[in-house]
Amino acid sequence: MTIGAVNDGGTARRLRLGMVGGGEGAFIGAVHRIAARLDDEWELVAGALSSEPERARRSGAMLRLDPARSYSSFAEMAAAEAMREDRIDAVAIVTPNHMHHPVAVAFLEAGIDVISDKPLCRTMEEARDLAARVAASGRLFAVTYNYTGYPMIRQAREMIAAGELGAIRSVQAEYAQDWLSTDLESTGQKQADWRTDPARSGAGGAIGDIGTHAFNLAEFVTGLDCTELAAELSSFVAGRRVDDNAQMLLRYEGGARGALWASQVSPGNENGLTLRVYGEKGGLSWRQEHPNQLHFARLGQKPELLTRGGHGSGPAAAHATRIPAGHPEGYLEGFAQLYRDIAGQLRARHAGAAPDAAHMLVPGVREGVRGIAFVTAAVASSAANAAWMPIQA
Amino acid sequence: MTIGAVNDGGTARRLRLGMVGGGEGAFIGAVHRIAARLDDEWELVAGALSSEPERARRSGAMLRLDPARSYSSFAEMAAAEAMREDRIDAVAIVTPNHMHHPVAVAFLEAGIDVISDKPLCRTMEEARDLAARVAASGRLFAVTYNYTGYPMIRQAREMIAAGELGAIRSVQAEYAQDWLSTDLESTGQKQADWRTDPARSGAGGAIGDIGTHAFNLAEFVTGLDCTELAAELSSFVAGRRVDDNAQMLLRYEGGARGALWASQVSPGNENGLTLRVYGEKGGLSWRQEHPNQLHFARLGQKPELLTRGGHGSGPAAAHATRIPAGHPEGYLEGFAQLYRDIAGQLRARHAGAAPDAAHMLVPGVREGVRGIAFVTAAVASSAANAAWMPIQA
Amino acid sequence: MTIGAVNDGGTARRLRLGMVGGGEGAFIGAVHRIAARLDDEWELVAGALSSEPERARRSGAMLRLDPARSYSSFAEMAAAEAMREDRIDAVAIVTPNHMHHPVAVAFLEAGIDVISDKPLCRTMEEARDLAARVAASGRLFAVTYNYTGYPMIRQAREMIAAGELGAIRSVQAEYAQDWLSTDLESTGQKQADWRTDPARSGAGGAIGDIGTHAFNLAEFVTGLDCTELAAELSSFVAGRRVDDNAQMLLRYEGGARGALWASQVSPGNENGLTLRVYGEKGGLSWRQEHPNQLHFARLGQKPELLTRGGHGSGPAAAHATRIPAGHPEGYLEGFAQLYRDIAGQLRARHAGAAPDAAHMLVPGVREGVRGIAFVTAAVASSAANAAWMPIQA
Amino acid sequence: MTIGAVNDGGTARRLRLGMVGGGEGAFIGAVHRIAARLDDEWELVAGALSSEPERARRSGAMLRLDPARSYSSFAEMAAAEAMREDRIDAVAIVTPNHMHHPVAVAFLEAGIDVISDKPLCRTMEEARDLAARVAASGRLFAVTYNYTGYPMIRQAREMIAAGELGAIRSVQAEYAQDWLSTDLESTGQKQADWRTDPARSGAGGAIGDIGTHAFNLAEFVTGLDCTELAAELSSFVAGRRVDDNAQMLLRYEGGARGALWASQVSPGNENGLTLRVYGEKGGLSWRQEHPNQLHFARLGQKPELLTRGGHGSGPAAAHATRIPAGHPEGYLEGFAQLYRDIAGQLRARHAGAAPDAAHMLVPGVREGVRGIAFVTAAVASSAANAAWMPIQA
Repeated sequence: MTIGAVNDGGTARRLRLGMVGGGEGAFIGAVHRIAARLDDEWELVAGALSSEPERARRSGAMLRLDPARSYSSFAEMAAAEAMREDRIDAVAIVTPNHMHHPVAVAFLEAGIDVISDKPLCRTMEEARDLAARVAASGRLFAVTYNYTGYPMIRQAREMIAAGELGAIRSVQAEYAQDWLSTDLESTGQKQADWRTDPARSGAGGAIGDIGTHAFNLAEFVTGLDCTELAAELSSFVAGRRVDDNAQMLLRYEGGARGALWASQVSPGNENGLTLRVYGEKGGLSWRQEHPNQLHFARLGQKPELLTRGGHGSGPAAAHATRIPAGHPEGYLEGFAQLYRDIAGQLRARHAGAAPDAAHMLVPGVREGVRGIAFVTAAVASSAANAAWMPIQA
Repeated sequence: MTIGAVNDGGTARRLRLGMVGGGEGAFIGAVHRIAARLDDEWELVAGALSSEPERARRSGAMLRLDPARSYSSFAEMAAAEAMREDRIDAVAIVTPNHMHHPVAVAFLEAGIDVISDKPLCRTMEEARDLAARVAASGRLFAVTYNYTGYPMIRQAREMIAAGELGAIRSVQAEYAQDWLSTDLESTGQKQADWRTDPARSGAGGAIGDIGTHAFNLAEFVTGLDCTELAAELSSFVAGRRVDDNAQMLLRYEGGARGALWASQVSPGNENGLTLRVYGEKGGLSWRQEHPNQLHFARLGQKPELLTRGGHGSGPAAAHATRIPAGHPEGYLEGFAQLYRDIAGQLRARHAGAAPDAAHMLVPGVREGVRGIAFVTAAVASSAANAAWMPIQA
Repeated sequence: MTIGAVNDGGTARRLRLGMVGGGEGAFIGAVHRIAARLDDEWELVAGALSSEPERARRSGAMLRLDPARSYSSFAEMAAAEAMREDRIDAVAIVTPNHMHHPVAVAFLEAGIDVISDKPLCRTMEEARDLAARVAASGRLFAVTYNYTGYPMIRQAREMIAAGELGAIRSVQAEYAQDWLSTDLESTGQKQADWRTDPARSGAGGAIGDIGTHAFNLAEFVTGLDCTELAAELSSFVAGRRVDDNAQMLLRYEGGARGALWASQVSPGNENGLTLRVYGEKGGLSWRQEHPNQLHFARLGQKPELLTRGGHGSGPAAAHATRIPAGHPEGYLEGFAQLYRDIAGQLRARHAGAAPDAAHMLVPGVREGVRGIAFVTAAVASSAANAAWMPIQA
Repeated sequence: MTIGAVNDGGTARRLRLGMVGGGEGAFIGAVHRIAARLDDEWELVAGALSSEPERARRSGAMLRLDPARSYSSFAEMAAAEAMREDRIDAVAIVTPNHMHHPVAVAFLEAGIDVISDKPLCRTMEEARDLAARVAASGRLFAVTYNYTGYPMIRQAREMIAAGELGAIRSVQAEYAQDWLSTDLESTGQKQADWRTDPARSGAGGAIGDIGTHAFNLAEFVTGLDCTELAAELSSFVAGRRVDDNAQMLLRYEGGARGALWASQVSPGNENGLTLRVYGEKGGLSWRQEHPNQLHFARLGQKPELLTRGGHGSGPAAAHATRIPAGHPEGYLEGFAQLYRDIAGQLRARHAGAAPDAAHMLVPGVREGVRGIAFVTAAVASSAANAAWMPIQA
């Protein structure tokens, strides 16, 4: 075993987490729970785990919730928690997309910090409403664009911010999967069902579910806003009501150009999120399926491999790492980093201190709104034969 | 050493090759000569190796040409060779692009078969003129889109033709390099100089030099024509007169959608030609820098690795391979495959026989014209703010 | 986000974990804590976290232990916990090697189940003594050869057990690092210090610290015992008291042959544990740094890629996986799998039920003893000029 | 197309090559012919292509030999060529191993330079006899350990010679294939037949056919002689008369330690020749199946990727390269490098000049003898239960 500094938990009490959604049969709720638990900063203490009361109760019991805090609706939960002295420090919203807005509103109104799964909501109206409410409330509002928690993504961002690539010229972002290559929604498969239903998922299919991740990651790493796009959305599976494949051109502030490909119908791709960024002075390449590696080439020099915990990794990556180089951290650790950083923000607030800048990289409502603006522009562009549409967040 | 069947040369005389261009300091001419030589089908016997007579003479001597057949101009060469009984079987045109058309015309008029480097020429006018002349002449006319000679590209094409991917849904093509990341042309570097001069290279920069390869390869492998495109061309290096980065959307006959990225300003990319094709039933991925491998995934099954000469490689790949699996063949062998196939066509004609279908995959004037149509459409689209433009070959 | 079934926690109370070692500045203790926490099966409730009382107290406070259960010595802890009604369900021993035996003895005598870090102890005497005590006690005794928890390692084991490789012919195991390439121990670096001190680490350096992992993994995956070895140990760093590089030949029951390389002085290797196994009918290859992939080739067929959660993964891998294919799980999840399986065993015992076979793959005292026998044989062989030495467990 | 300097052929006449062996159905003869042709330095003008006269005649016709120089026996050929004014500049011996010695003797006696395929011969007696004859004759004698011709192998050698790795500590060499996993020899397959017949192949099976390559490559790259070995040879296929799998320990002058694995029964390996070398200051890794890449890590720094023709490649690699970075060269080009370097030596001799040092890296009779000493020691060691045996060349 090699050596390294592992952070796990630490001083003071665990933060109290509530959860809306994420009951039996759900996927992302369980991921949030592991992520919250991994660094021992959080304890799940309350939930409205399903919109079906009996299922909510059963799920709460399985997760060892105090029955008094296993609620049968999010509204009840927001109201009840607001009244408790030991109320939750934050709520994680892990429902299908159509519930993101109402749940967030309820908890913001209850004065409770919010951690929302992505995308933020379904429409620009909802998104702008949420942004306004967050601003007015002063609450913390995090959106779990979880790939921003990967150490080598933090490293890439830090290198670009430090000018190691020079002015950015081009961005190639892609996120390819294959699990919707057939008409899975007609089989009743739960995850496929709501993701392909515009009423619940919003106007975007692949672009909303995974394209927003790629879009967000490119902005996060480059530090540049995308200003407009020209998109071609396809629905290759007969009868599908949302896009399942999208190719688009991107323009960034400062003149950089990009392309983004999101697909859920590309056989052989499991979770193929890839980002490549090129500037005047260098280029970077990163693949989510091998997240501990970052390929970097300085123009005119030998390509280098930066690894999580390895030589050449800087403080931003170190902040997001737990174990030594060569011991792979993965998806759950990257996700956990958001929970760790949110905890850092909350603890600073509790202490009346300024938060550590390293904890402030968690995507927030601004990034959430931009994601919805991205989906909105992509749908509009495709409807207009791939005409350029501005990203109006 | 493992075992395998190696083809090298064979019956009958070597075919006689002439060359225009390719003298001292040239790059692609030497590649053509190695390619022609590798399978022992051809012998270089004549040349107009430079437009500067003294350089042409010196180059001819170095290549052991009979001084009587080391010509000081292509026109002289065409005229003189046409009169010889042992005249060249074909001429290879390896000049900068602006000379492709006049040289080809001269040799077609002399009744000599032509092997032209890509792109075919500079403009649609030149391209259509050449196509008409080829049709009228009945001569063989090959365009060295050399990547079509790679065995695993032949394999990919064969698999798609056999329906192993089902209906094609999307195509991701890219060709990225970094050698023009700076203003190399202002240093007098010869290869950069003419490639960035529209008068010599045509209207396309990166799209003409390498984008045409990616475009051609996607059509070759899928068997589908691209019908229109929407392109964003950039010239990131200050003062550059042609594009050095291009992102574009593609539409194919039958409804497939695609994206193409060509860049010569992306640090860390040496010769990054990559093709991915996805259909209803499976997906394929291939990278030029590791050309002996083809990744294939049948929907719902384990991904497979097909290798040149390995298990699962079919007759099309076998036709284009020389040595056993695991002994890598590379760029020169892929290029040589075109010369081998051209030889096969000529030998069949000499024998009054129908050519073997396997020899007929060499790109010809049709593919050459389509390449120019691609460049033309891309330039027009970009000038029209990435509006869709038809590929009008 | 794709879909999948995530297990996290579940019914009934969390199991109570105690820990000996793992205080401030330790490495592997923190890993055990994350691993125990990840699947929500365990809660750390007691510890003797350092042999220095003040440090033990501080460490306990940081980990939120009840001060009454933050002990100043392991002996005190064993005695006190044995008396509690809510006593720990198991103790994790995460001290340097020389303390493994006395601590394990103390807790076994207290009737408490033991989870010991590897290697089991320092000498065959200690090892055999522990084995006898475990047998007599009827306690659960786990040794955290954590790489056995990786899903694709479980998959490999299952495939070999099912005969998919036929009779095993050869095994190539290696574990290479570079962190001890210089005389790090003389700098006072804590991890290097005790690992290179035979009094604390035992007779093995690299072979004990990492070689035992590779040895164990090969036996785990093949299901074969290694019967003898011929080893060449080196200490390349001047003044080093233990081996830092070892090459050896292996013989397995049934006639398979193998080689093992362990090195901590090989620049460029972070945590390069690799296992390749070949049989009459197929071959397997796995690399710890990309643990979600398993390469499999059936003789005469196309190589296949099996992925965690992907097509072709069987029940053994599924048992050890949390999230869908393409979302990488890593070192911590693999480690956590042992804690999950141990919990499964304990819960079955609590319920008076037979344990699930899938939970029984956790390495135990037998594997621990074999690891010490491996180190003992390797040291003896090297001292005898690489003569064959039996593995006498 | 990127740019680069391509060497192809050049001044003066082509050198005249003769060949013994390599007729219809042969494998390695065709490889030699392509290799000789590729750089336009050689012309095949004479041959005794088969030991069966009719087959020899047919093969000669197919290769366009002057019938007068298509001989029915090597003895006739040596005698006849020796008398010609335009006699061959060198003979390539590409027969099964048992003919290497007699053919080499015949041509050395005829005063003709020799290029012999590996291994040099069958026994130490033959090897020492050949070495003595070569020394006495003053003739050039090359042994085609062709992997030494790969540019990145030349690069690795140059870096080690320049001290970039410091003192070498360990060497991991391996060469794995799978084509002899079954009893192929009993099917009459020609390549398997003679390679598994000790009378024709010598005492080594896998160790002679491929192990010698790995052994040679390790010595070539490190510049160190291996002094002794301890080997375990296996014959896993029932009835096989030679080894098909070998694991061994190696000791090098200066104290470096190594391991070598050669196998022809490891499913999933096509031509898996891999070399890794570690020293005090850095480490190198190279895989034959992706030969254009060389991984290099300087201790304590980021790993680097050196590519053929790319940044950081030095003069030794440049000498052995033809085309720009990113355009893969492969097995045939590496093999051709030996023919190019031999030509360089001969041309220097013809010119009465000292040869260029870069041309002197071609393995010669010394390396040939060492290869036989390696096989001899390995067989003896294995027979003595893997006792250490000196490499007595």
